[in-house]
Formats: sequence, structure tokens, C-alpha cells
Amino acid sequence: MPADRTEDTIAAISTPPGSGGIGIIRISGAQALAILQRLFQPHDRGCRFRSHHLHYGHIVQPGADRILDEVLAVYMPAPRTYTREDVVEIHCHGSYLLLSRILELILAAGARLADPGEFTKRAFLNGRIDLTRAEAVIDILAAKTRKGIDQAQAQLAGALYQRIEAIRQGLMQMKAYIEVAIDFPDEDAEIVDLGGLQQILEQQVAQPLQRLIASADQGRILRDGISVVIAGVPNVGKSSLLNALLQEERALVTAIPGTTRDSIEEYLDIEGIPVRIIDTAGIRDHAEEVEELGIKRAKVLLQQADLVLFMVDGSRDLSEADLRLHRLVAAKPLIVVINKADLCQDGVRDFAAQGITGAAVWISARRQTGIEDLRRAIFAAVVGGRDQWQEDGCAPNLRHRQALLRAEAAGNRIAESLAAGSSCDLIAVDIQECLEQLGEIVGLTTADDILDVIFTQFCLGK
Amino acid sequence: MPADRTEDTIAAISTPPGSGGIGIIRISGAQALAILQRLFQPHDRGCRFRSHHLHYGHIVQPGADRILDEVLAVYMPAPRTYTREDVVEIHCHGSYLLLSRILELILAAGARLADPGEFTKRAFLNGRIDLTRAEAVIDILAAKTRKGIDQAQAQLAGALYQRIEAIRQGLMQMKAYIEVAIDFPDEDAEIVDLGGLQQILEQQVAQPLQRLIASADQGRILRDGISVVIAGVPNVGKSSLLNALLQEERALVTAIPGTTRDSIEEYLDIEGIPVRIIDTAGIRDHAEEVEELGIKRAKVLLQQADLVLFMVDGSRDLSEADLRLHRLVAAKPLIVVINKADLCQDGVRDFAAQGITGAAVWISARRQTGIEDLRRAIFAAVVGGRDQWQEDGCAPNLRHRQALLRAEAAGNRIAESLAAGSSCDLIAVDIQECLEQLGEIVGLTTADDILDVIFTQFCLGK
Repeated sequence: MPADRTEDTIAAISTPPGSGGIGIIRISGAQALAILQRLFQPHDRGCRFRSHHLHYGHIVQPGADRILDEVLAVYMPAPRTYTREDVVEIHCHGSYLLLSRILELILAAGARLADPGEFTKRAFLNGRIDLTRAEAVIDILAAKTRKGIDQAQAQLAGALYQRIEAIRQGLMQMKAYIEVAIDFPDEDAEIVDLGGLQQILEQQVAQPLQRLIASADQGRILRDGISVVIAGVPNVGKSSLLNALLQEERALVTAIPGTTRDSIEEYLDIEGIPVRIIDTAGIRDHAEEVEELGIKRAKVLLQQADLVLFMVDGSRDLSEADLRLHRLVAAKPLIVVINKADLCQDGVRDFAAQGITGAAVWISARRQTGIEDLRRAIFAAVVGGRDQWQEDGCAPNLRHRQALLRAEAAGNRIAESLAAGSSCDLIAVDIQECLEQLGEIVGLTTADDILDVIFTQFCLGK
Repeated sequence: MPADRTEDTIAAISTPPGSGGIGIIRISGAQALAILQRLFQPHDRGCRFRSHHLHYGHIVQPGADRILDEVLAVYMPAPRTYTREDVVEIHCHGSYLLLSRILELILAAGARLADPGEFTKRAFLNGRIDLTRAEAVIDILAAKTRKGIDQAQAQLAGALYQRIEAIRQGLMQMKAYIEVAIDFPDEDAEIVDLGGLQQILEQQVAQPLQRLIASADQGRILRDGISVVIAGVPNVGKSSLLNALLQEERALVTAIPGTTRDSIEEYLDIEGIPVRIIDTAGIRDHAEEVEELGIKRAKVLLQQADLVLFMVDGSRDLSEADLRLHRLVAAKPLIVVINKADLCQDGVRDFAAQGITGAAVWISARRQTGIEDLRRAIFAAVVGGRDQWQEDGCAPNLRHRQALLRAEAAGNRIAESLAAGSSCDLIAVDIQECLEQLGEIVGLTTADDILDVIFTQFCLGK
């Protein structure tokens, strides 16, 4: 019979791989302190590991008397810890090889290697945080823009949890009314205040659910970002545009040296939206390939794009190649980018007459003019249709959205039952279903396999 | 007049870039606590920042009242800290974007961004560690094998410092004798115990210097590793050999998940020596290029190699191509690797008769036999000539070696002067020169520009 894995003492490297000033190994569980005491020689030999106090000393290989590193070690007794269990952290020099070696000693001393996200999973299982807050931790680590972090921090502070809880309170209130009616079926039917129930359902359940579902789209955009493809015939200035967009961005990102090494440099941050820009230049500028392989690959890229920047040369009339490419992209969300604005002294051409319509932005990629307008146009194209670009930090993820939709469906059935005067038993079933769907979001009723899927999204050591 | 930079309060991200469980920002200097207090809202509002105690709370943007992250913060008052100054650490969620953002607030609150290695430089300038120990920190972070880490840890514990100090003590003793003779020139010449001085010079200065210089080679090998090129005609099995070597290695390295993401995967660890294996297969297997470009590029690779694995097919006689390639590599340190041992049932061919001599190892790359023999042969080829492969952690780096050679030269001059009965003043000059060269190693007499070169080898945040 396998032991209960939640009883194990677990350990992992909690800092990113690579070389840095400080590396941390985290241990959580009942054996954490005992393991530390086997490996750690405090500088102050009489030290009694005061709670949350950093002690200076050395990690020594048991038996071999070999010093592995000079470290700071801290013991944090339950429950005031990340996991609500006893937690130990060892702060070493930030060499991944060194950290691996110390981790091996810790595992040999009786700890088990933590699964990805297992520290946070324990924080959830031990009741320190609900599931939306645990998921917010993933979002913080994965956020590609500052707005993405803000959104995740708000969720970590409980913004989404509180909204779900408020809806659950409304449902509990309805449930209480309905249960009275079920318990006393012979009483006056007036015991059920139909109008009151409908009001609670509408104001405290249906409307908040709708708002949350509407903001899920925003969550997807903030978390995953959007992909924008620059399409245009050869020499229209695609690479210059890409550089102009990135150049502006890099000035923003590199205020702090070192940040460019992060993956954020691959994304533009447009009003908080992570925008991945894909240039098709490399494909289309090989003249021979354009008609064959080039178009095929561009088609795939275009298919995946959320938005296409269709680029034309404003200093000359459209060519047959421009129009052919336009037919390829016309069905996608599109911004027409008219380049070489600086060369258009002879007046503006009427591209619309040639069938190229829609939002258009004049730029000069070379002189970097109009780039800010283009950024605004991209934001408007992504967000414009939504009247609810919210700032309150409620941005449900895909999993939440599915449960919210099921809760909404149950809510609709309750509304129908109330309108039709159906039996209270039937209404009670749908109220229960709605509660359970919301419980799945915050982790009250979430199945183990779904929990597994959630926590494996974490990195090791979190 | 520019302010003294050593008076600044400095700050940097001290964990590696990338996503991880925990990220740390370190602040050092007189303003560290004041800056923390401006940005940090402790959960326990009355908290008085006990020394070395982790406090739970939030980083809040001043003025905006916006929570940036929930963190643990620790204040470590001077002098029991890494830099011997007041140090503050903020432990956040490990998102580099988040860390950059909090760092920006810290810089806005009055800290200066730390130069690479500036924390460790302050530890040196404030007298906590000598220069060899500071350099050991670089070595720990850059070490590619466990033996490399051990060597660096021994140096951090003072192994090299103590050896240098012992030599300096011998020189100081000689200096005291000589100064008496200089101060009392009219006394009996017997006041200088020539034999005694020669003995001190030989045993406490010259011999220890020689041993240290001899071990510098070991230091270079352990720190930088060696590069080994696999050379052989097409289809002799170069890629299979590379895979066989790497496969064995990967089994060693991936005991801990995540370690393969580190750069160590690019190196074999052969008895602690980081060995970078370069396969010339990609170059030479394009038939047309072999004679022209291919040979040119292979020549460059071969020129840079510390060791060549010259691979032949043991199941057939040597071809003209084999012999041509052998002429190209014959001048390099070489191991002849005879592949396809499993196909040689008809007896061993006499390659020596065809001019291919030297250490030979029979392997089967396909069946992975003989690989362990080859690893031993590589180690012997690198280390074999050295009778002093030391385990005591004294492995001077290139900078140390230069100073040791200059100290040795001064020591030789002292020996000559003693033998020739030259004037005590002359001897005193050379003793002083020898002391200064050793002082440069431990940082007593090291010029500022050399310090700058040393500390810029560090990563940010160390």
C-alpha cells in the first residue's frame, strides 16, 4: 500500500536554473528541521533555530566531513509558512550544479523530490489559499507584461475568489428559501417569495456570472497575448517595421540591465497586452519560393494570427502582388499599414478604390513616425469590440470560464423553473449544480485529476 | 566632485534570470533599511525588523497604494553580513519582470544599481574576505564539475590564502634578519646567518612557490576544461562515439530533474575535468566540401583542440583518406580510437606499421564497449604528465600564476645574492618585491584597475 504522498517531506530547488548570486533549496514537511540538522553546521554551535531566523553556517556532507557550501539556513515552523507545514530554506551560492548536489544530500537524508507546484498544492490542500489564488501564482510567474502581473496579484489577493463567493452567497440564500418550501410542502405556497428569489437570481447570480464570463476573454488576452503577423510583398518595409516596433519596446524593457535576457523581449507590451510580432519577411523575400513554399508557410502563419498588419508602399500604386496577398488575408482581422509616408509628397493614394478598406495607419518605418499610432490601432483592434476591458483584476482563465458557463446554464434553468412555477425539488437540484460549478473554481469540489493538471503547470520548486 | 561610490547604497536582483519559485533582490549600504521601510508593509504592523529575521508582508508602490507582491523581507545589520554593511533581502515570487519592477522602486527610493560583483567587492574592501576568496566565489558560480566546485570551496575556505600567507611569513622572517644587518652595518658580519636565510628561502619560499606554480595548470584545467575534437573520415563512427560519451554522461547528470537545462550538459565530466567534445562530423560528411572548405574548418577546430581523438575503423585497413587526416593531426596530443571492435573477429590490424602510433583504445561505439577505457585514456592524456594532480584545493588561476612567477623570479634573485654575498640592501629590495607580488594575489597590494577586471567577471547581484 503506497504511503500517503501528502505526508512526505518534500524538497526542490526554488530559484531558476542558471548562475546567479543566490540559490535556494526549499524543504517542506514534518522532517524538514531534522534533515537540516543532519546537513547544516551552524557557525554558532549552540543555535536553537529560532523561527524565521537566518542562521549562518556550512552544509557538510554527512560522514565525509566535506564542506559543500557556506549558507544561510532558515527554519519556519508551521503554520506561518508557504505550505502551512514546517518549512526550511537553505540559501547557497547560486550555482545550479552546487544546488543539485546539496539537493541530493537532502533527498538522501529522507526527503522526496517535490513535484512541480507541490509546495503551492500543499498551501491549497492545507487551506491557506483557495484554488484561484494558487492559479494566480502560476499567472504571476508566467506574466509577460506588468498589467499581466497586476491582474495576477489582484487574483492572488482574492479578487476572483471574492466575486465567486458573493455569487455563492446568493445561491445559498436561495437554497435556504427553497429548502423551507421543500420541508413544509403543505404550508401556504406563499412561503416561497417568487419575486424575491427571481431578484436574487438576477442580481446576485446571473448578472455577476455574465460579467465574469465576459471578462474571461480579457484574461486570455492578458495571459497568452495575441499574435500579430506582418504581411506584405517584398521590400515594402516589413523588417524595418518590426525593428521600429522592437526598438521602441527595447527602450522600455532595458531600463534595468539584464531584463532583456528574459523572454519578455520576444513580446511587445501594448497597453499591457503581450503582443508577439511575426515577420513573414524571411519567407517571402526569397523570390523563387514566394509563389510556392513561401505562400504555403505564410498561410499557416496567417491562419494562427489574431491580427494581420497588411503592409503596402504608400509611395506607389498597388501591384498585382499586393492585391493577391490582400485576397489571402482579407478574411482576418486586419490593419492596413501604409509605409513610406515620408515619400508621399504627391498626395495620398486611394487604396480603398482598389478594394483595400478598413482601419489604416500611415507610418514611416525608416523614420519611425506613426509607430505610436500603430500601437494604438493594434490595441483598439484587439480590445475595441469589448466594452468591458476591466481593471478590477477579475480575469477568469479557460478552466474558470468553462465552469462559469456551466453555472450560467444552471442559472438559466433556475430562471425558467421559477417562471414556470416548477417544483422546488427541481430548482434545488439546479441551485446545487450551480454551487458545485462555482465550488470547482475555488477548489471546494475540484476533482483530483483536475488538481493534478493545474499544479503540473507550475515550475519545479514552487 | 563625484561622491565616493563605495558610500552608495546598492541593489540588484540576486537570483538567475528566468522563472522560478523564489526571486531575491539584495540591497546593501547605509540606506538599506530606510528603503525597505518605504516600500514594505509588514503584516505585523508593529514589527521592528529584528536582525536576520524573515518578516512577511507586501511590497507596495509608494503613493499608488498598489500591491506589487507578497514577500518575505529580512534586515541584516552590519557587520554580520555578506558585505559587512547593512543588508536587506526581499524574497518575492520568482518572475523576472516582477523583480525588475520592484528593483525599479528600490532605485527610485535612493539605491544605485549594483555593478556586477559589487556586493562581493564590498566584502573584500571591508575586509571580510581576501582577494583569493572573492575569486573563489566566481569559480563556484562558474564551476562545470563537482571537483571544480570542491576546488573553489577549498579556496573560499582559505586554502590558497593560507599557503600564500605561509610564504609571506617566511619572507617577513628573512626581512627581519636582513633589516638588523642593514641597521647595524658595523657589527660582525656573522649577524647574518647566511645558512639560516638560505634554508628559509628554500623551504618556506622557493619550494612552496614552485608547487603552487605547478598546480596552476591544474587550476586552468579544472576551471576552463579542455576541448577534445573527434576526427575521422566519414562513416568511421564519430557521431556514434559522441552519442555514446554523452549518453553515459546524461545518465549521471539527470539524476536531478532540471539539471540538464544547465550548461553542464555541454560538458563531459571526466574525473572532475570539464571536457568539451567537438565532433567534426558535420563538416566532413559533406563529401564535396571535404577537400576544400571542410579541411579548412577542421584545421581551425583542430588547432584549438587540447586533445584529438583520431578515429579509425578497426574492421578494415587504413585508407589513403585516413592517412591524410592523420598527417593533419599527428602534431597534436592524440588518442587513436579504433572503432568497430565488435567486427574485428579476424584479428587485430597493425596500424603502427602504417605510422599510426601512440595511445590506442579499442571501442565499439555502437555497442558502447570500451567507452570507460576511453574516458580513462582522456584523463591520463590530460593529467598523466603531471605528477602533482593535487587534491588540496590549491589551484591558482592565471592572474595568481603571473604573480607567482614574478615572485619566483625575485626569489631566484635573492638566492643568487645570498650565494654571491651581495649587499643586504639588494636582498631587501628583492624580498620586498616578492612580498608585493604575493600581496597582489591576496589583495593587499592590488591595483584598482586589476580589481575592476576581477569583479566584472561576476554576474549581477553577487
